[in-house]
Amino acid sequence: MQVKVVTRILAANDRMAEENRERFEAAGVYAVNIMGTPGAGKTSLLERTITALKDRLRIGVIEGDLMGSDDAERIGALGVPVVQINTGGACHLDANMISVVLHDLPPLADLDLLIIENIGNLVCPAEFNLGEHRKIVVLSVAEGHDKPSKYPIMFQESSAMVVNKIDLLPYVDTDISRIRRDALAINPGLEIFELSCRTGSGIEEWTRWLAASRS
Amino acid sequence: MQVKVVTRILAANDRMAEENRERFEAAGVYAVNIMGTPGAGKTSLLERTITALKDRLRIGVIEGDLMGSDDAERIGALGVPVVQINTGGACHLDANMISVVLHDLPPLADLDLLIIENIGNLVCPAEFNLGEHRKIVVLSVAEGHDKPSKYPIMFQESSAMVVNKIDLLPYVDTDISRIRRDALAINPGLEIFELSCRTGSGIEEWTRWLAASRS
Repeated sequence: MQVKVVTRILAANDRMAEENRERFEAAGVYAVNIMGTPGAGKTSLLERTITALKDRLRIGVIEGDLMGSDDAERIGALGVPVVQINTGGACHLDANMISVVLHDLPPLADLDLLIIENIGNLVCPAEFNLGEHRKIVVLSVAEGHDKPSKYPIMFQESSAMVVNKIDLLPYVDTDISRIRRDALAINPGLEIFELSCRTGSGIEEWTRWLAASRS
Repeated sequence: MQVKVVTRILAANDRMAEENRERFEAAGVYAVNIMGTPGAGKTSLLERTITALKDRLRIGVIEGDLMGSDDAERIGALGVPVVQINTGGACHLDANMISVVLHDLPPLADLDLLIIENIGNLVCPAEFNLGEHRKIVVLSVAEGHDKPSKYPIMFQESSAMVVNKIDLLPYVDTDISRIRRDALAINPGLEIFELSCRTGSGIEEWTRWLAASRS
């Protein structure tokens, strides 16, 4: 009974995601869904990415949080259009939320890249397609090396994994090669970027891939 | 419609949680529900806590993970009874799961303290009572200082907050006084412990409080 309800919700979400996807494609917008644990550094990654790419690409951002607008303010300070979704208590964004807030961004035809920052959660967002072209999972080396094996769905669904905060590697017991190995065992096609949003190390390789992955 | 379904699920869960609670009380077991982000160090905190208290208290552990038994093996190595719940994809433990696995632990009357480690998730577990006497939220300073303000429900529901990995403070831009201030603004009665499971600093204060909070 409970499973049936959940299945119906997911099917309805997938239909709405398909509509979003068609709108993105019709307008030539490349949409990415950034997911990861709370505190992995998703917003910092957006700041670095936008700073690197905003002269080349017209970028719009959708920020997802339970409440508050701190992240949207950080992004807005970079001079790109941003809209904040507050889910109240909900633990993931869904396709309908995206559809609704698209009205609060510039017309899609005026954007090249739409970045959606999901709720900080390594579980639920993986199951809700938003109509994005790619999902990206972000984690930090401070979280240890067991995240891919313990939360595999997220890594299975993603096109790329960003391993952030590598500047902390000397101070933690994390084996980054195990992160890499376990993630690739789950998803052999996963692109992997190891970087530090704090120092900027590795950012260029990531943004180069992201820009190139549009086509 | 969707809200109705969710409300019904939560009400059914609360009834089952109440039954669990009655079983704990009848047997004189103190039950705590440890929640927090993936990688906050929940299992490391359990290891430190069990090592400190196992000569004084008879401890049992329930480990929650999407899949795998890594955490249960780490706990079992300490010589205390442990049972692993694998939720498949579900993002939180619920009261029924706890009720079912109690059969796989020693009789409750032979335990003083039951520690439940929830799924790594700063959102959903806060809404599902398990019958525990106290909820404890764990976060790490590597996650930044904005977690209480961005995920307030978890901090509202908890009796204590453990801020882990304080050995990383010199290497991150986290303002620990802001974590404290924001968490207390949400929940003025919150007990706060700042510690490092890696170095052991602050562990004694935490375990002393935990043992004393039983009565």
